[in-house]
Amino acid sequence: MTLKLHNFFRSSTSVRLRAALNIKGLDYDYIPYVLRDGETRTPAYLAKNPQGLVPTLEREDGSFMGQSLAIIEWLEETHPTPSLLPQDPDGRARVRGLAYMIACEIHPLNNLRVLGRLGDQFGADDPAQKEWFTHWVSITFDALETTLKNSKETGIYCHGDTPTLADICLYAQVWNNKRFSISLDKWPVIERIFSALDQLPNFSKAAPPNQPDAI
Amino acid sequence: MTLKLHNFFRSSTSVRLRAALNIKGLDYDYIPYVLRDGETRTPAYLAKNPQGLVPTLEREDGSFMGQSLAIIEWLEETHPTPSLLPQDPDGRARVRGLAYMIACEIHPLNNLRVLGRLGDQFGADDPAQKEWFTHWVSITFDALETTLKNSKETGIYCHGDTPTLADICLYAQVWNNKRFSISLDKWPVIERIFSALDQLPNFSKAAPPNQPDAI
Repeated sequence: MTLKLHNFFRSSTSVRLRAALNIKGLDYDYIPYVLRDGETRTPAYLAKNPQGLVPTLEREDGSFMGQSLAIIEWLEETHPTPSLLPQDPDGRARVRGLAYMIACEIHPLNNLRVLGRLGDQFGADDPAQKEWFTHWVSITFDALETTLKNSKETGIYCHGDTPTLADICLYAQVWNNKRFSISLDKWPVIERIFSALDQLPNFSKAAPPNQPDAI
Repeated sequence: MTLKLHNFFRSSTSVRLRAALNIKGLDYDYIPYVLRDGETRTPAYLAKNPQGLVPTLEREDGSFMGQSLAIIEWLEETHPTPSLLPQDPDGRARVRGLAYMIACEIHPLNNLRVLGRLGDQFGADDPAQKEWFTHWVSITFDALETTLKNSKETGIYCHGDTPTLADICLYAQVWNNKRFSISLDKWPVIERIFSALDQLPNFSKAAPPNQPDAI
């Protein structure tokens, strides 16, 4: 028995969890779902994850976990090395704060079901969806860039020279941005950190193009 | 010197942090901001919180913390009693998962700046904004209700008989729902838990109507 990861190559929250599992050195079986085809809305999938969202982590005992950030905190607690959070509470608060800027202020507004809803409720076409997507990325990346640029705690990565939960969220979000060809030119610190992360095999192996279901 | 809480009575993330501070027994000075008047977009406020969001916690040393969930995890680590998370990793993952269902799937889609953007970009009027708000509450509360109803770990509150981070997010969200008069009739377990929480002074003292800037 091994871990099973129910996920989708392009899903940003799936990228996060794949990177965390890679960093923790945990193998998993990759089980892909096509979101647009409703494969996560079936009764079988809803029994695993009542929200009908990816990713879901299926554990060795057959139990299921949802919500990528909750799973990553659980991985951190049950497999503490290498660590994804600093050891000091202030550092942990800084890393979680950076992570949540992305996870609570960008990603929830820009995922597939939200863009679909904009189309259904307001008739938003592709350019309107891109404008929406870009707006939320921009205002939070502006603040994130300022925060990273003005802090001595920023290193090669978001917090010092070891990748953390903040980097996992940043890496996944920048990949998500590529769907709408958003340039990082305005955010040189974010761009530098993304490039550094992309050279780490545990991150690049988690990237959308490198998954078995990539199209 | 004491903690200073920069916040807004109706803000859901401010409700969360007020409840957590109350539970931890920490006093704070209440510093209100009127979001609609742009009081969190001034250079002075942006220096405290580059996102221009509430809440911001100002610490005794004059430093500032943003992102309610990051601050609450910091409070949990620095003031562990009474605890807002179970002691076992599985329980902690369940509680965080429930909290993030709300904090990552409902609240980010429904806060004031998002509703404003719907108006600006798509001309959404009040009924359209209510439809949007209600949609995101409904699909996640449906899943949350199912999860809570089907688990033996649900007690008086979301996880056993002690309030946790999940209850803090649930309590704040139900208050937020009141802006659009969303009934809880469809979700009896959520309604029961909210009512139980509302009887706890640490929660009710955090509720919007009980703040000095309430209108």
